[in-house]
Amino acid sequence: MLITLTTDFGTSDWFVGTMKGVISGIARATRIIDITHKVPPGNLVDGAFALAASSPHFPAGTIHVAVIDPGVGSSRRAIALRTRNAIFIGPDNGVLSWAVREEPVEEIRVLNNEAWFLDPVSHTFHGRDIFAPTAAHLAAGACFRDAGDLVEDFVRLPWPALEKGEQSIRGEIVYVDRFGNAISNLPGSAIPPAVLEEGRLTTACGGRMLTLHHCYTDVPPGKPLAILGSSGLLELAINGDDFAEQNGIEVGSPVRATWQD
Amino acid sequence: MLITLTTDFGTSDWFVGTMKGVISGIARATRIIDITHKVPPGNLVDGAFALAASSPHFPAGTIHVAVIDPGVGSSRRAIALRTRNAIFIGPDNGVLSWAVREEPVEEIRVLNNEAWFLDPVSHTFHGRDIFAPTAAHLAAGACFRDAGDLVEDFVRLPWPALEKGEQSIRGEIVYVDRFGNAISNLPGSAIPPAVLEEGRLTTACGGRMLTLHHCYTDVPPGKPLAILGSSGLLELAINGDDFAEQNGIEVGSPVRATWQD
Amino acid sequence: MLITLTTDFGTSDWFVGTMKGVISGIARATRIIDITHKVPPGNLVDGAFALAASSPHFPAGTIHVAVIDPGVGSSRRAIALRTRNAIFIGPDNGVLSWAVREEPVEEIRVLNNEAWFLDPVSHTFHGRDIFAPTAAHLAAGACFRDAGDLVEDFVRLPWPALEKGEQSIRGEIVYVDRFGNAISNLPGSAIPPAVLEEGRLTTACGGRMLTLHHCYTDVPPGKPLAILGSSGLLELAINGDDFAEQNGIEVGSPVRATWQD
Repeated sequence: MLITLTTDFGTSDWFVGTMKGVISGIARATRIIDITHKVPPGNLVDGAFALAASSPHFPAGTIHVAVIDPGVGSSRRAIALRTRNAIFIGPDNGVLSWAVREEPVEEIRVLNNEAWFLDPVSHTFHGRDIFAPTAAHLAAGACFRDAGDLVEDFVRLPWPALEKGEQSIRGEIVYVDRFGNAISNLPGSAIPPAVLEEGRLTTACGGRMLTLHHCYTDVPPGKPLAILGSSGLLELAINGDDFAEQNGIEVGSPVRATWQD
Repeated sequence: MLITLTTDFGTSDWFVGTMKGVISGIARATRIIDITHKVPPGNLVDGAFALAASSPHFPAGTIHVAVIDPGVGSSRRAIALRTRNAIFIGPDNGVLSWAVREEPVEEIRVLNNEAWFLDPVSHTFHGRDIFAPTAAHLAAGACFRDAGDLVEDFVRLPWPALEKGEQSIRGEIVYVDRFGNAISNLPGSAIPPAVLEEGRLTTACGGRMLTLHHCYTDVPPGKPLAILGSSGLLELAINGDDFAEQNGIEVGSPVRATWQD
Repeated sequence: MLITLTTDFGTSDWFVGTMKGVISGIARATRIIDITHKVPPGNLVDGAFALAASSPHFPAGTIHVAVIDPGVGSSRRAIALRTRNAIFIGPDNGVLSWAVREEPVEEIRVLNNEAWFLDPVSHTFHGRDIFAPTAAHLAAGACFRDAGDLVEDFVRLPWPALEKGEQSIRGEIVYVDRFGNAISNLPGSAIPPAVLEEGRLTTACGGRMLTLHHCYTDVPPGKPLAILGSSGLLELAINGDDFAEQNGIEVGSPVRATWQD
């Protein structure tokens, strides 16, 4: 079995290693893969996006644990979601929701099987005390229904609205990656294939007009471009530089793409 | 078998990956878990704390390797400590000592079995040449006594003194984590349970008076609080912000907790 | 089987975790070891050095994947190199070349077996879509010859020239590590063993004259020294401080070592 971890714990302290120790004690043969631990502290949107972008590329049956949890120790619920292909475990604050945005959730459980938790449960580190051992018990073969009581709903983060015209689409930046590429919520699937193929698309963002290209090196170093990114969304970039920083772009910045059929 | 790694090597270079390559060549089936590689260069106290905070959560038989080693290549000894539950391997400079602060050390060996080392042994990278292969040989089933000669003692870092009164306890900050939470050496176990439960405790640190709460969100965003942390020690924090930075707190800053029974 | 990963993807985003998900879906039992993901964006020289310094320490049969790929999506080729001990996979831009600088390459394949790629292949993330699945297919037992067509050559980064005199050798800095140690291309093997052993060597770099020592603590804290590093190359360091930063040294800075026989 495979467990992935997505957190805002950073890698300077012992938090992530400790979660892996707990998992290994319960489900020794389980493999653990880090998605990222550098989500900005408490940033649900960045965590939700990282999980949504990576989880489709894991084999069926993978258990994804996401702990961006500013409300740890409060009355916020801990949940597990089961889809056809995967299980998602984390606090019920929306961090899991974008990963299941386009996939039916077949079963939702609130995590209240205390027999699976560490004893005592701390008020500050449910990653170690609740989420890691729950994932490990499931990886070791426990039934999903034993994770806790069935519930009907879970918290969903809103996905920013798209405004579609005849030959245009408006949205916003939803993630800025380590290279400074600004990923929008404009899906390539909303644009006619011939337009994408022939690059007959202009993207406006942060006062710049960007032409669509197939790869970064289609433009000279230092020049900006739009590109259909690896998540199927339009991205804005500079060949060899940091687009977001150079142009003051951040999550929420508006983007508009227009084309001639 | 399971080997953990705690170092100050960072993750920018090839040092940690190389240690894992050496381990894999000797003990192919062994799993390797990173505690952290971001210990500030040469900072024995931070490394000792990270190892002590994480190691109790690993399954019995785990081999913990800690390489914070400013004296690498000098006459400082390399050692292995065996407790009932674990083996600890590293330079004999105190970095291992807090992990065994409350647990009897059953056997101490100086690492001088050169047959286990890489050949040649460099003067600058004993993590690769001595510690990794020693851990791997033990993980692969070699006898602990073959690691080297029996010795009687090892270097212990002093644990900062606690000064206990009738209704007070004084100590100091021993770690600042990635979120800026300042962890003190004041153990929850030294405070009456009813006081902890009902929050009838005031903590003074850096000129601030902090009330004990159960979780970060018990106070409004931006407000400070004291909390019983996941290591069983009192921590000082701000809901959603960096307590240590905001208040100029660092390792060694004095802390005092007082209460009414 | 064992796959290593060396990239400039950083660890803030989901890129590395996603590559591991793809590998795990194809070759579930394969272990994955990170060399580093903190290569500065697009820095082929740093990536090539990290791979060359670490790869000799992995067991025979290891598959090394290096993705520093500023030309992703352009016409640059994707290649796999087979030596007696290992397979190297990455873009054909030189990033693999230093790892095989001293070892015969027995077979070179351009990666064009599209049946092994993800479908569709993005223009921006060949780490996920081409390199990871190719490595995974090989790790799962596929034949090297099925990776793609045989080719005759691949791009090699120049290794900086050494200028050898009777009792001197000139070269340059090729890497600066996380501690600020400046690693030169002057090999210990080019210097008489007795000179090395007795420290009768003076190294000049950045206007400083540095004496050769065996370990960092042979000089007082804050003092500079030369040392034969763990890669067999002369390094310049300060005991307990950052040599490169203190002296304005970077990759390409000239170095000269002189000795009396």
